[in-house]
Amino acid sequence: MENVFARRVEAIRSLMRERGWDAVILTGSDPHASEYPARRWKQVEWVSGFTGEAGDLCITLDHAGLWTDTRYFIQAVKQLAGTGIVLHKMRVPEQVPIPQWLASQAFAEPVIAVDGLCQTVSAVKGLEEALGEGVRIVQVPDLLSPLWEDRPAIPSTPVITLGEDLTGESREAKIHWLRKWMMRQEVDAILLTALDEIAWLLNVRGSDVDYNPVVISYLLVTMDSVYWFVRKDAFHELDEETQASFDELLSDEVTLCDYEETCVALSTFVDEDVDRIWVDPSTLNIHIREHLDECGYSVVEGLSPVPLRKSVKNRVEIEGMREAHLEDGLAVERFLWWLEGQVGRVDEWEAACKLQSLRAEIPGYRGDSFETISAYGPGAALPHYVTPRTGAPVLEPHGLYLVDSGGQYLFGTTDITRTVPLGPCTALEKEDYTLVMKCHIDLSMAVFPAGTAGCQLDILARNALWQTKRNFGHGTGHGVGFFLNVHEGPQEFRQNFNAYPFVPGIINTIEPGLYREGMHGVRHENVVLVREDGTNDFGKWYTFETLTLCHYDTSVLVRDLMTPEEIAWLNAYNEHVYRTLSPRLSSEMAAWLRRKTLPM
Amino acid sequence: MENVFARRVEAIRSLMRERGWDAVILTGSDPHASEYPARRWKQVEWVSGFTGEAGDLCITLDHAGLWTDTRYFIQAVKQLAGTGIVLHKMRVPEQVPIPQWLASQAFAEPVIAVDGLCQTVSAVKGLEEALGEGVRIVQVPDLLSPLWEDRPAIPSTPVITLGEDLTGESREAKIHWLRKWMMRQEVDAILLTALDEIAWLLNVRGSDVDYNPVVISYLLVTMDSVYWFVRKDAFHELDEETQASFDELLSDEVTLCDYEETCVALSTFVDEDVDRIWVDPSTLNIHIREHLDECGYSVVEGLSPVPLRKSVKNRVEIEGMREAHLEDGLAVERFLWWLEGQVGRVDEWEAACKLQSLRAEIPGYRGDSFETISAYGPGAALPHYVTPRTGAPVLEPHGLYLVDSGGQYLFGTTDITRTVPLGPCTALEKEDYTLVMKCHIDLSMAVFPAGTAGCQLDILARNALWQTKRNFGHGTGHGVGFFLNVHEGPQEFRQNFNAYPFVPGIINTIEPGLYREGMHGVRHENVVLVREDGTNDFGKWYTFETLTLCHYDTSVLVRDLMTPEEIAWLNAYNEHVYRTLSPRLSSEMAAWLRRKTLPM
Repeated sequence: MENVFARRVEAIRSLMRERGWDAVILTGSDPHASEYPARRWKQVEWVSGFTGEAGDLCITLDHAGLWTDTRYFIQAVKQLAGTGIVLHKMRVPEQVPIPQWLASQAFAEPVIAVDGLCQTVSAVKGLEEALGEGVRIVQVPDLLSPLWEDRPAIPSTPVITLGEDLTGESREAKIHWLRKWMMRQEVDAILLTALDEIAWLLNVRGSDVDYNPVVISYLLVTMDSVYWFVRKDAFHELDEETQASFDELLSDEVTLCDYEETCVALSTFVDEDVDRIWVDPSTLNIHIREHLDECGYSVVEGLSPVPLRKSVKNRVEIEGMREAHLEDGLAVERFLWWLEGQVGRVDEWEAACKLQSLRAEIPGYRGDSFETISAYGPGAALPHYVTPRTGAPVLEPHGLYLVDSGGQYLFGTTDITRTVPLGPCTALEKEDYTLVMKCHIDLSMAVFPAGTAGCQLDILARNALWQTKRNFGHGTGHGVGFFLNVHEGPQEFRQNFNAYPFVPGIINTIEPGLYREGMHGVRHENVVLVREDGTNDFGKWYTFETLTLCHYDTSVLVRDLMTPEEIAWLNAYNEHVYRTLSPRLSSEMAAWLRRKTLPM
Repeated sequence: MENVFARRVEAIRSLMRERGWDAVILTGSDPHASEYPARRWKQVEWVSGFTGEAGDLCITLDHAGLWTDTRYFIQAVKQLAGTGIVLHKMRVPEQVPIPQWLASQAFAEPVIAVDGLCQTVSAVKGLEEALGEGVRIVQVPDLLSPLWEDRPAIPSTPVITLGEDLTGESREAKIHWLRKWMMRQEVDAILLTALDEIAWLLNVRGSDVDYNPVVISYLLVTMDSVYWFVRKDAFHELDEETQASFDELLSDEVTLCDYEETCVALSTFVDEDVDRIWVDPSTLNIHIREHLDECGYSVVEGLSPVPLRKSVKNRVEIEGMREAHLEDGLAVERFLWWLEGQVGRVDEWEAACKLQSLRAEIPGYRGDSFETISAYGPGAALPHYVTPRTGAPVLEPHGLYLVDSGGQYLFGTTDITRTVPLGPCTALEKEDYTLVMKCHIDLSMAVFPAGTAGCQLDILARNALWQTKRNFGHGTGHGVGFFLNVHEGPQEFRQNFNAYPFVPGIINTIEPGLYREGMHGVRHENVVLVREDGTNDFGKWYTFETLTLCHYDTSVLVRDLMTPEEIAWLNAYNEHVYRTLSPRLSSEMAAWLRRKTLPM
């Protein structure tokens, strides 16, 4: 058997035969249900070679399947060739998720093995419900480790703490709020497992996961103590910054414990008046969950209260985000100015590198907030295109170039997409560009009553496309963290019935798009802040304030397709961008931006 | 104690003391969870004097409360004066529904009595969940009967059957479909309890409930028999039509049983190979539910499959609905023509009578589909205004008159609202009229992909209002039955997360509005049919076809507030109305309609 991935699947099957397992499930996540895992937990990639950001594997003795969604079908087919692994399509009407697929496989009393660290409590519950009585789920922590010789270690990067001047709320105040919540729930402790929740609560940041400034850890908050389970490596040969951060945490009565001893330590609190522990089954892994039962705790499962509170930014965070978008906008404008002179000479990868180097000049820059999508022409038709480092297409002086990127700064996180006409465009490119712009503007202009959720607003960013029977297959916008994950909940713009309303202080993207395979892709993305907009006889009203500061190219817009209100919004936005940024640009660039932002 | 209603509450309290009940709950519904009950079941009205169409009572030894929603607050305050009954507001952010209110009343182990016939299984479950362990719910069928001396009898009106020429699907075919569904669910029988589901399945109609052409009954369908539990009165001195209908049903092997012996009869099937019975807890009453347990059936609770299938009209039903809207439109146009000559001379009630008399001339007319709302000026500001029979306001030659009405015909059901300027209007009236028109048109023009639900489309009928911080507090549209209830589900246009998608064949209203207390009300309502509109790379697309045929008055529209697309839609609609109706109108009326429908 030639194929390395086919060999790895066979190695897993040998293990299955040895242990008497009928199936093995491997997820693309880590022990904290992170959206993006560190390399150590890229188990799906190691087994299958598939590098998409979402995908789960299910292996039986006679079948190996990869479950992934619409975004990755083309990529999966290519990467799975020769592995013997079959693509199972998700987010399509006829989808059969892993639990239902397993249920259809006519096992009598199946034994299903999962990596106990990388499978959530909720996922295991889903399996049990689908498979009914008779199924036995075996959770094995680090299931792949015996096979994966050079498996990467758990990452341990420098840790920093952020002061109240940056976060607007002290660690103490956040913990106080959490304890008040715990009292209302009548629990003695809460175990936080999601990395961005922990980073937010402790006002700490790291870089254990690419693009996500988090620290791999667990956090147990009791009524009188806080235990942070973090990599012990971090205690040896600490860099100065981390040492200072740890000293500060200790002085705030946070007890530092070893990440790899989490289970051992958790066994001890049961004797210290900790009985009822709140856990969030959507992010807690099944290994720790079972351990808590074994220790004798009364475990209460429910949503963590942190994501909802974290989503509503305070005054200082909002000011930081404004600052981040100003600095980031300047970098993107400098990039766009540079780009105009480079068309025909640079490729997608070089353009992405240039953009990163401009961001890197900003004081407080801590890296990009996700991998830049730098895509020219047909590449942009893949909403999650990965720009190749070598041999990337050159940007030619016609058609559309799409660049979706963002930065992490000590004072905020950004996410912006601009679709740039590089020269003459086809009528269809212009039409698609215009219709997506209408969608972007129509949602940006929304005025809505208190209590309105994303799915109730979503059509505003689709209707202009739907009227011409066009659509896009991804969500319309996600929450953005404050110097944290660029994707955060709980609210979102999407067709799904997500009931979380958009309340003042929420920061979210608006990013409709349109994709034509083999031709072009368009996406226009800004970050907006929800603001109060008065109260009248009909209730309390909210609107969006756009935080992103970077002009939209109006040269290829089809004016006749736009309403006067849309044109007025766009002209006002571009004027605002010019007035805000031009004092910080060179006179040459300011003059260029003036031309770019003249009213339509 | 003077007040008759206060006396009735006291009589209930005497009963409570006698029986050891801590609380009594009375609903505004009937044993079939009907939206509108027959007089016999207007228990809330009898006890409290409140005549609103939605309201529940909860009486304890020291408190009596009426729970109703925004629509009825003003009316409830007025009608409850002097009764000692307190208004509890629903559909407001701070609402406390009856179960939660009871839970807050600090009863130790409360005994709560409900009318077993008029309380659904779901409602009782809600009570039990809110009150937790220790609560005892006592269900008493006809709880009020001992106190209510002249309580009206169970209605029993003539029954008719509809042929396949009208319904498009025979009783036999519908029962066959239901049995196939039962086989998939592995049940031996289904007990249908909702009156419109029974009428649809049996192709029968009656008039036991005002405006709703249904027959008070239960229906048990087993794999080889159909038992219809219907009022025995109907068997004595049958009118010719009913006799023929019953003969037809008998020949189709439907067994007729006595409605009042339903429980007795249900005891017998358990010996006849009926074990698993499907019931819908949202419409089944708790009395019958408990009886089924006592009989020893295995009861399976789940949604009835009938509403979903009934909502998708077949070809014949659609043709009938088209015909109904043509005839109904002619009647409404004749009314509007008449109205123009009567302004200043007739009152709201007289206008409503005139409209009814014009509908009554249509062959196949079987009554109105709901009580006409004929409201001038401030009256129209109440979305559910009830026109007084005497002393109703006169229609004056200025401002807005709102008329919301509909007809029941053998071949369909209609529902239409027109807001008519009777002379000069204020700027605010014109603006509100125009913005509601934009909302109406924007949803009517929707193009949407397969799978789209009402809450995802709803904002199209609100955005034009929201942009100016105006809103309306009711749903945007409901399903319409085929010669059946004017309100039917399961789909709807509303902000609620109702997941039922709009599929081709669904017939629904679009009725945005705007209401200003003490001033005026505006509502524009048409009935639309969902139609396929092609498939392309982006999926399968649907649109609406408007069935209602009656012009919209354009004279008070503020043109500058409308988009060219909205104006084009309205001009095309009015032209279509003129072309379709004018051949059937007198030349004088046709000339009038020509003037009314000239393009803006």
